[in-house]
Amino acid sequence: MGKGTLYIVSAPSGAGKSSLISAMLETNPTYAMKVSVSHTTRGMRPGEQDGVHYHFVQKELFEELIEQNQFLEYAEVFGNYYGTSRVWIEENLDKGIDVFLDIDWQGARQIREQMPLAKSIFILPPSNGELERRLNTRGQDSEAVIAKRMAEAKSEISHYSEYDYVIVNDDFDNALMDFKAIIRAERLKHDKQAAKYKGMLDALLAE
Amino acid sequence: MGKGTLYIVSAPSGAGKSSLISAMLETNPTYAMKVSVSHTTRGMRPGEQDGVHYHFVQKELFEELIEQNQFLEYAEVFGNYYGTSRVWIEENLDKGIDVFLDIDWQGARQIREQMPLAKSIFILPPSNGELERRLNTRGQDSEAVIAKRMAEAKSEISHYSEYDYVIVNDDFDNALMDFKAIIRAERLKHDKQAAKYKGMLDALLAE
Repeated sequence: MGKGTLYIVSAPSGAGKSSLISAMLETNPTYAMKVSVSHTTRGMRPGEQDGVHYHFVQKELFEELIEQNQFLEYAEVFGNYYGTSRVWIEENLDKGIDVFLDIDWQGARQIREQMPLAKSIFILPPSNGELERRLNTRGQDSEAVIAKRMAEAKSEISHYSEYDYVIVNDDFDNALMDFKAIIRAERLKHDKQAAKYKGMLDALLAE
Repeated sequence: MGKGTLYIVSAPSGAGKSSLISAMLETNPTYAMKVSVSHTTRGMRPGEQDGVHYHFVQKELFEELIEQNQFLEYAEVFGNYYGTSRVWIEENLDKGIDVFLDIDWQGARQIREQMPLAKSIFILPPSNGELERRLNTRGQDSEAVIAKRMAEAKSEISHYSEYDYVIVNDDFDNALMDFKAIIRAERLKHDKQAAKYKGMLDALLAE
């Protein structure tokens, strides 16, 4: 059994990243895949489950984990910590499980430095008009609110070329097929196949 | 329009390489793809067409092309030259066409040196037993002939790890899906997408 691959997935809000990752996990039961679950010190909200939505931990423990260099990246937002556990990810990769890490371009840079074998995917909306339509989901947001979201989206988009792969989410089914093709192709890289087919290769090459 | 990708495809006899390449071209009419057509100085055989099976040229012209460094690789076999034209391949890549180059591991090494952006794919048979069955196609070859083919196949297989991707051709449809996933994923690499969606990206990133 070879190691799994860590996939860094980034996108501006409105590009459909979460829907694509969910659809990927639902429609690919034969592949071993998981979404990375972050650690946080914020309180659990109704409907949330520990270990599913977040690993909920106390602030003291989080700061201890920071000191032990257990996070691939972390950030403090409004007094709460959020971080990506190196141990959790490596345990899953060692089991041959591919892990998806949903993170912005800044987090992606930190992860790439520490996990150079990670592959990164950026998801783009098909146009400004469509992006604006998707960002104005409730159809009643103020122009100022939408303008702010658009500016944030453009800032994220400006980093697309730092990623290995770029998917344009115009047609959802087509974008999902792109996503699946990337995962399938990465599993065909020679080192992954050498691990998966070790016994067969040994037999093929035996005298 | 971005540039096409050169795919080096190698396999031992009996792995199903030609069938996979043919099926790929037939079932993917929306992708621009071609198989590289070699130059040769040997005579045309009944049923062969110039420019389809080979580019048939005179020995004097071939040697002139060698001197002009027009071949990515060439070899002399039983007094006839066979070679892969750099110009033909680059013209097609420039048009955004993916080119498949069916070649052995030695030719693959020469191509990789001169075309570092080429991607390479190795196709494996699923087992020795299946390989032997496929090599004994007429069911009446002598043991010595089959043993010689098996030895050649093993020699080729021993170079599989020099390739970017490895496909195991156990189930043909599955192997074809692997092949398609590789081509699709390579077209999602950020530089290919940046070229394909240049107008859209410029608009997304405009102030």
